[in-house]
Amino acid sequence: MNDIETPVVIINLKTYTQATGEKAVLLAQVCERISNHYDVPIVVAPQIPDLYRVAKAVEIPVFSQHMDPGEPGRYTGHTLGETLVEAGCAGTLLNHSEKRMQLADIEASIDKAGKLHLYSVVCTNNIAVSVAAACMHPWSIAVEPPELIGSGISVSQAQPEIISGTVEKIRAVDKEVIILCGAGISNGDDVSAAIKLGAQGVLLASAVATSKKPEDVLTDLVSPLSK
Amino acid sequence: MNDIETPVVIINLKTYTQATGEKAVLLAQVCERISNHYDVPIVVAPQIPDLYRVAKAVEIPVFSQHMDPGEPGRYTGHTLGETLVEAGCAGTLLNHSEKRMQLADIEASIDKAGKLHLYSVVCTNNIAVSVAAACMHPWSIAVEPPELIGSGISVSQAQPEIISGTVEKIRAVDKEVIILCGAGISNGDDVSAAIKLGAQGVLLASAVATSKKPEDVLTDLVSPLSK
Amino acid sequence: MNDIETPVVIINLKTYTQATGEKAVLLAQVCERISNHYDVPIVVAPQIPDLYRVAKAVEIPVFSQHMDPGEPGRYTGHTLGETLVEAGCAGTLLNHSEKRMQLADIEASIDKAGKLHLYSVVCTNNIAVSVAAACMHPWSIAVEPPELIGSGISVSQAQPEIISGTVEKIRAVDKEVIILCGAGISNGDDVSAAIKLGAQGVLLASAVATSKKPEDVLTDLVSPLSK
Amino acid sequence: MNDIETPVVIINLKTYTQATGEKAVLLAQVCERISNHYDVPIVVAPQIPDLYRVAKAVEIPVFSQHMDPGEPGRYTGHTLGETLVEAGCAGTLLNHSEKRMQLADIEASIDKAGKLHLYSVVCTNNIAVSVAAACMHPWSIAVEPPELIGSGISVSQAQPEIISGTVEKIRAVDKEVIILCGAGISNGDDVSAAIKLGAQGVLLASAVATSKKPEDVLTDLVSPLSK
Repeated sequence: MNDIETPVVIINLKTYTQATGEKAVLLAQVCERISNHYDVPIVVAPQIPDLYRVAKAVEIPVFSQHMDPGEPGRYTGHTLGETLVEAGCAGTLLNHSEKRMQLADIEASIDKAGKLHLYSVVCTNNIAVSVAAACMHPWSIAVEPPELIGSGISVSQAQPEIISGTVEKIRAVDKEVIILCGAGISNGDDVSAAIKLGAQGVLLASAVATSKKPEDVLTDLVSPLSK
Repeated sequence: MNDIETPVVIINLKTYTQATGEKAVLLAQVCERISNHYDVPIVVAPQIPDLYRVAKAVEIPVFSQHMDPGEPGRYTGHTLGETLVEAGCAGTLLNHSEKRMQLADIEASIDKAGKLHLYSVVCTNNIAVSVAAACMHPWSIAVEPPELIGSGISVSQAQPEIISGTVEKIRAVDKEVIILCGAGISNGDDVSAAIKLGAQGVLLASAVATSKKPEDVLTDLVSPLSK
Repeated sequence: MNDIETPVVIINLKTYTQATGEKAVLLAQVCERISNHYDVPIVVAPQIPDLYRVAKAVEIPVFSQHMDPGEPGRYTGHTLGETLVEAGCAGTLLNHSEKRMQLADIEASIDKAGKLHLYSVVCTNNIAVSVAAACMHPWSIAVEPPELIGSGISVSQAQPEIISGTVEKIRAVDKEVIILCGAGISNGDDVSAAIKLGAQGVLLASAVATSKKPEDVLTDLVSPLSK
Repeated sequence: MNDIETPVVIINLKTYTQATGEKAVLLAQVCERISNHYDVPIVVAPQIPDLYRVAKAVEIPVFSQHMDPGEPGRYTGHTLGETLVEAGCAGTLLNHSEKRMQLADIEASIDKAGKLHLYSVVCTNNIAVSVAAACMHPWSIAVEPPELIGSGISVSQAQPEIISGTVEKIRAVDKEVIILCGAGISNGDDVSAAIKLGAQGVLLASAVATSKKPEDVLTDLVSPLSK
């Protein structure tokens, strides 16, 4: 399951108008070009109704923004892992601060994702929650202090101790989980700072998804990671 | 917005394995053939990740199984109306018993659906809730006593007073809303009984979505409605 | 069930420190003195753990801030109507903007409250939701535009059309439900304005619960209602 | 905070009619007599509206069935730690299978409980979730496979590997957290089996709360623990 190499950049398209429908496809294609050109893994997470068309259009990994636990059957409106696989997804975010999940459902979803060979990224809000999430062995943890999400203030620069503390505490219980830094990441300096603190990548949204020049923003973001 | 004529048959694909991904497309195409052949409107409601591919493949109306309220922007994992429109949807179920919604969110979603020219079907569990939902002016109300959903016992035959009572009480406050009968509908007799009680159509799932011969089931279902 | 006369003033103590535990008892006693002195019905809604001690201490009606639907049995952590009755409550708020409920649960709770002879007040956020709630026949509807709650800006003065519109639209479907005005009510002028617009009382919180002189605030509030 | 000694027996009164209001007080007094007579710590967890009257009536520890995170202020209908303290509670259950909580809220509630010197017991459904919960350092973890809750089939006898596995995996990350065994505990043999597997106590409900002879049931339950 570790075919997605690190450092990795995950772009969450949220529900931004500029990243919906055909525009999600175009933005994913920009991500793909930058990923290929700089040889840095970029993952794109479009809205759930856009997953199929985006996954058809690009070869970089496409993640869902959410996944529900549960088996196929009577779950109207739920987003099951099996259906994500059919749609061409490679993985999913879980427990994003805008879509918080119950503890038992996070664990069940991580477990299900593993069985379906889907990458799982659990979003967390502080060090203690990050360690708890790591104990359930997802592919990755993305620590995002909620007050910095969408703020333009990078957690890696404003609260570096959250990243370094998360890395230290998680490594005491799990050596393998990928640790990402989210919240407020908007440029290459933020990425560099995150990597120096021990993160293996970043999760970001608005800086790319709402940019008029996403290609330029992405280029700046991945430049510290290029091999 | 009343271009979908009544009586109408809505097929909810839920999260059945037999109606996921490419199989959802094939099933929607069966629905389309039957709809065209018998000149009875059939709507199909696939899982959200399957909406785009199904909507691309058929010309009958495709509904989402759920829609969240809210405007584009920071709502990771939410299913917004604008995105449903981009995916080719014509409407959405709301408040299905497997995806219950808060009162204020139902109202906001109905309002949003109207602005986006999306059909909205609010699922309800009894007469009082049906009347309350009708006061918020969705396109349609589908009354489904939860204990009969998936039971194979038709509400139109087992509890006819729920259908007739819903029709009577709703008509006292709203003349236009489409009234559908859900829960346990599995054959043409159930459909006939529903229509006789004043319903303008049916909402069903397992009888079609899990059938080995959906074409036969659909033919039986629509035969009382054929013109 | 209409033993609580109108116009009525309901004081929601929320979870304010100044209105917790023994302080909730003292504040309820102030409400009782003002209610008796001016002959205006005042209802107090303390936090759920405080219900019993407040109900023991005063004879004015004590309402819960929330009630869950469901029958006695296996519902750890739920607040059932039967237990509210045992605690001495006379009624309950439902669907407060800080404790939104699913549509089906609101209906079930109103129904249960009626069977237990508990007064039910459904909080709503706009005209359409108010009418929907009225169709489920609670004792009362309290319309509170969420953006004004706790603002100090009175809905009765800032958005009078919401009150008059709610009264007009509700009366088209229900003649009996008590219509209250909430959100931003802080003084007697706000109360007068609400009554003139057709409301039969007010629901408020911070102006009383966080005041250093609640007796003065209450005196001002009820003065326009005194007989 | 470890003044409650182990092994400990926690009795969850749920919302059983036989354990509501004055009957909750009487049952708590029975628990107190047995606790004192056999010198075994017994904790009682009544419904939230009953907390104050039960805490006034007994000296054994009284726990809430639930606690919400958040600070005093605008949280209508929430059950805050500060209010539990004022009501005389010594602690709280969190994340019971009938009141599941979001991961971030569990962590915030554990943290808040610690600051308020309230004991926190996080209910969990399997080994992985138990370890995750333990990483957030509550006072105690109560592992309860949901399918056995209320079944009369004891987890300690039917699925002993869940208890022994939970103990082993939790001890790898935390030496201090109290580990309780829940689900299906109904007699002294179940308690003995749990203790032998490494549990430091039990959490149970129906066997005591719905019994016509709770004194006899409690006597049997604590007999293996008496010093």
